[in-house]
Amino acid sequence: MTMIVRDLGLSLRRLREARGWSQEQLAGHAGLNRSYVGEVERGRAIASIVTVEKLAAALDVSVADLLCPLSARSHTTVAFAVAHSSGEGGA
Amino acid sequence: MTMIVRDLGLSLRRLREARGWSQEQLAGHAGLNRSYVGEVERGRAIASIVTVEKLAAALDVSVADLLCPLSARSHTTVAFAVAHSSGEGGA
Repeated sequence: MTMIVRDLGLSLRRLREARGWSQEQLAGHAGLNRSYVGEVERGRAIASIVTVEKLAAALDVSVADLLCPLSARSHTTVAFAVAHSSGEGGA
Repeated sequence: MTMIVRDLGLSLRRLREARGWSQEQLAGHAGLNRSYVGEVERGRAIASIVTVEKLAAALDVSVADLLCPLSARSHTTVAFAVAHSSGEGGA
């Protein structure tokens, strides 16, 4: 399993559970088959970018949120670091 | 053709040409077939996330840079806006 396949599965499960959705509910919102969604979550199926787009739309997140949790986080970190260095709340 | 398929093709061509690479050279670096790379660039083939990961690695960019040019740009814009509001070069 490559990194991106595993990361997508983990992000998908995390975001789905955060909404309190079953795999069936997510599949319904995304217009996908439930067992396929389960396989993507477990890293057993390699999704196409169109599948990822459907899942992102169903979960109301960006494709980057699904595929690049680390890069999304590092962007936030950079923005935070820059904001922090602007001097608000100094010692 | 969905938006993400078109965007990937455009990003791919832009980044490949910026490196002065032929489709054959990009395919070689990514371990993919040249004609397949051409089809992805033209939005004729729907890439899997593993293909996107290979292409991103070959081009030394993130998956988000390939798939989410707009979201990547908006992250940059936010970071820039925050940096700018820190007061350097005020009127």
